[in-house]
This record gives sequence, structure tokens and C-alpha cells, in this order.
Amino acid sequence: MIYRRIIPIEFNHCDPAGIVFYPRYFEMTNSVVENFFDEVLDYSFARMTRERCGVPTVRIEVNFRVPSRLGDKPEFRLEIAGVGRSSARFEVSAWGGAIERLRADVTLVYVNEHGTSDAWPDAVRRRMIAFQQGAAP
Amino acid sequence: MIYRRIIPIEFNHCDPAGIVFYPRYFEMTNSVVENFFDEVLDYSFARMTRERCGVPTVRIEVNFRVPSRLGDKPEFRLEIAGVGRSSARFEVSAWGGAIERLRADVTLVYVNEHGTSDAWPDAVRRRMIAFQQGAAP
Amino acid sequence: MIYRRIIPIEFNHCDPAGIVFYPRYFEMTNSVVENFFDEVLDYSFARMTRERCGVPTVRIEVNFRVPSRLGDKPEFRLEIAGVGRSSARFEVSAWGGAIERLRADVTLVYVNEHGTSDAWPDAVRRRMIAFQQGAAP
Amino acid sequence: MIYRRIIPIEFNHCDPAGIVFYPRYFEMTNSVVENFFDEVLDYSFARMTRERCGVPTVRIEVNFRVPSRLGDKPEFRLEIAGVGRSSARFEVSAWGGAIERLRADVTLVYVNEHGTSDAWPDAVRRRMIAFQQGAAP
Repeated sequence: MIYRRIIPIEFNHCDPAGIVFYPRYFEMTNSVVENFFDEVLDYSFARMTRERCGVPTVRIEVNFRVPSRLGDKPEFRLEIAGVGRSSARFEVSAWGGAIERLRADVTLVYVNEHGTSDAWPDAVRRRMIAFQQGAAP
Repeated sequence: MIYRRIIPIEFNHCDPAGIVFYPRYFEMTNSVVENFFDEVLDYSFARMTRERCGVPTVRIEVNFRVPSRLGDKPEFRLEIAGVGRSSARFEVSAWGGAIERLRADVTLVYVNEHGTSDAWPDAVRRRMIAFQQGAAP
Repeated sequence: MIYRRIIPIEFNHCDPAGIVFYPRYFEMTNSVVENFFDEVLDYSFARMTRERCGVPTVRIEVNFRVPSRLGDKPEFRLEIAGVGRSSARFEVSAWGGAIERLRADVTLVYVNEHGTSDAWPDAVRRRMIAFQQGAAP
Repeated sequence: MIYRRIIPIEFNHCDPAGIVFYPRYFEMTNSVVENFFDEVLDYSFARMTRERCGVPTVRIEVNFRVPSRLGDKPEFRLEIAGVGRSSARFEVSAWGGAIERLRADVTLVYVNEHGTSDAWPDAVRRRMIAFQQGAAP
């Protein structure tokens, strides 16, 4: 399945060249992942913060293909590429119509309250796998 | 009238104390103003940027009353406190239920393509005054 | 006395108009306050975070007089305007040569590990008052 | 040769877990690249912005190995991995003592005033190659 989220490009995101300053894209990919955890996996970052665990990003690879401009409303898409014992790989892309603007390959790891990587909580793992195996929309 | 916009508090906004880092609030107040210009005044920041004019903030005063936390969904409200020849004063507040979290008094100035302050375009001025004089919702 | 700190304007700070996006200025004023606490008051934000106390900003008023541009190296200056039982008022200004770019009046409050405002720790209070009463450079 | 730059971790960079929020690292890697262009290649981002050209990042791959905390002062290092006709690959790493915190592989492209990729200006290319071939410090 694909999780979709539109993020309008605002003044705040743009640089003197009038396009998105690329570090802002990582705030966007993080926001997509954060909302996916809340809405699809029912495991919000707020809850994780209270429980002193988290899902830090350990690797990210991004190809920026087409710039986004002030006023654009790209659609971000998240798919699950793989689920490990304590890690997961997400593919996050941003689209303007049929044009792919960027594609990010994100690996994150579940870290418990002692700050060490640990097996995903069962319910989270189950929901990730169900999402990954669901029919494409 | 009151322009309303909900901005969910995401990880990106929060500091090591788990509350919104106050400079992020100014990204939010700017976003509220930006969307108000687009939706209500029909004069988007994207258009202003293309036409090389703008509405820089020249003064802002903010009282932070109650902190916002990760996962909160405060409602931002914008009212027009005054419209001058080339300036305008906006009152922007953020609310969690009946509790006011912050109140900002924002003065911005219309600057033309030569970088100097200038009279508001007629249509923008007319819409600001109509909004200011509209009945409260 | 005056605490001084130069913050070079980098790409990261600038908007599509090529000038500093004003929310970024609050990251700068916060950085000036943070470094002042570390270097002058010997009470770092890192220590406060470990001890679960802090100095949230409760009010800020800023007048933006002259914009800063990419490559500028404004000098920020911090003076103490007043020290209360649990609060303090700082005047932070930014200068390009003899031209004042902005002036901020910042009120912050000491908050203890229970999240309530409290009297300044003695050593911090003593150092603030010594700084305030020191001869101007 | 290696270009080195220390970036102190400030409150602004840190998330509710008390470590650097990873999108902030990209502001840091961008700052390192920006200062390298200014100090070593004598081709500042301010000048590029005035001349309407630029060096957008087209690909970045980062491995985050060890988190950075508030008050840390990691040393960022930049080395040139390759110089193409209109592109260049930089290796940027951040170190805390002998421990590598992160390693980024950054590809950027020279874009001319028409917004299309173009051959590096001769002087810039010459300085990049001289830096790449210089003896390690």
C-alpha cells in the first residue's frame, strides 16, 4: 500500500533561488514518516517520546530530480521496502503530477527506553507487514 | 472576521524539553499570515515573489502564555487590528481549546519591486478592510 | 557590559527575497542567549537540560529596521535590562557597522525541574547582576 | 586535503530525545559546503546568488552512526571525492574525537543563470582539483 500526504511548499521552505532548500525536504520526509506512524501504525511520536523510545533514522539516500517551488503542492508517498527485526526501510517519494521530484530511501531503527536497538513491538511490526503486503491502491 | 488554521505540533517543532522551540512559532505565525494572504486576500507569496514585491514583518511582539507539546493541534487565529497606507497590523493567537497559548502582534509593510514601502495594491487593501469589518463568526 | 557575538548570514537563513527570513532571527537571538548563559553565566543549556530545568522565553518584542543579506556578518549584542526574582530582561540587538539592524527585548523565566517558575540559582543571579553593573566596554 | 569546521550543537538543533534532529544535520553539511566554497574555492554562495547561478545538491547519502548531543562540538571534515564536467562529489563527515558520527556522500551540480547544468567555471574547477590532489594534512 501507499501512504499519501500533500505538503504545500511555503515561504519557510524556500531559498534565495526560490526553490526548496534541500534540508527542508528532510523535515518533510520526517513529517511524512511521523504521520504514517501515527495514522497507520497507531504509534505516535508523542507516545514514543513519553515512553522514552524512538525510531531514529540511521541511513538516508535521496535523489533530488526536479526542484519544487513556492506554491507547489507536491504529494509525498511512503511505501515499506522491508521490515527487519529492529529496523525498517521506507521509500518516500514526492510527486508533482506524474513527475517524480525526489526519491528517498530511509532506514530507521527502533530504540528502546535504554537507548539500544530492540525488536519492534509486536503490534507495530504486524501493522507494518500488513501495510507492506496490502494491495496497491 | 477571524481566519483560522490548525497547525499540528510535530517532532520538528519541539526542543529537548519536549515543548515547541519558540523560533518555530514564528514559522507558524508566518505560515498563518502566508495562507491568509493566499486564501483571503487572493495575493499569494508565490505571486509576490514573482513580482519582486513582498510584505516583510517590521515589528512583532509575542507573549507566550502556555507551552505547546508534541501531538497538540493548536488553532491559530488571525484578526486585522489596523490597515495603514502601506502597513497592516495583525493579531495572531494560538489556542488549545479555550486556553490561549500565545498572542502575537505583527506589523508588516508592503514593499514594491524597488524594495521601498508603498501603498497597498487597491484590491488587497479593499479585501483587508472588508475582512476587518466583517461580522465576527 | 555587552556580550558580543558575530553570526554570519548563511544560505540557510535566507528567503526567496535574498534576505534573512525573520523566524531565523529568533534562532540567532536564542543562540546569543544560549552562548551568553554558557560563557558568561557558566550555566549551559546542556546542563539545564540534564537537570530538567530551563529558561523559556515568555515575551519577545522585536523591531526589524534593516534587512540582513547572504554573506553579511552582523554583530549581535546582549545587555541585561533587568533581573527579577525568577525572570530577566535582555536587550539583544544586531549591528552591521554603525547601523542597527534589529532590536529585541526578550523576557525569560527560570523554570525548575517541576516545570514551575522559581528564583534564579544564587550563582546565576549574582553573575547576571555583576554583568549588568559592569562598566560599559 | 581536508577542510575542517567545528559546528557546536546548540538547543536549536536538538529534538525531544535531546539529540540532533537529523534534518538539522543537513543544514550543517550545507553550511560546511557553503563555507568551503567561500574560503577555499573563492566562490561564495552570495556571489552565486547575485549572478543567478548555483550548486544544487542532486544526491545525498548519509549514514548516521553515533548521535550528537547538546553541547557537543563535532568537527566536520570535507574531502573531494571526484570532479566531473559540471558536477562534484564531496565526502563530508562529522567527528567527536576519534569517533565518526556521520558520513555523507554529497553530489552537487553547477547550474548557470539559465537554470541548466553547465561546465564549472575554470577557476573553480582548478581550485577543486588542486584541493583534491593536495597532500593530506
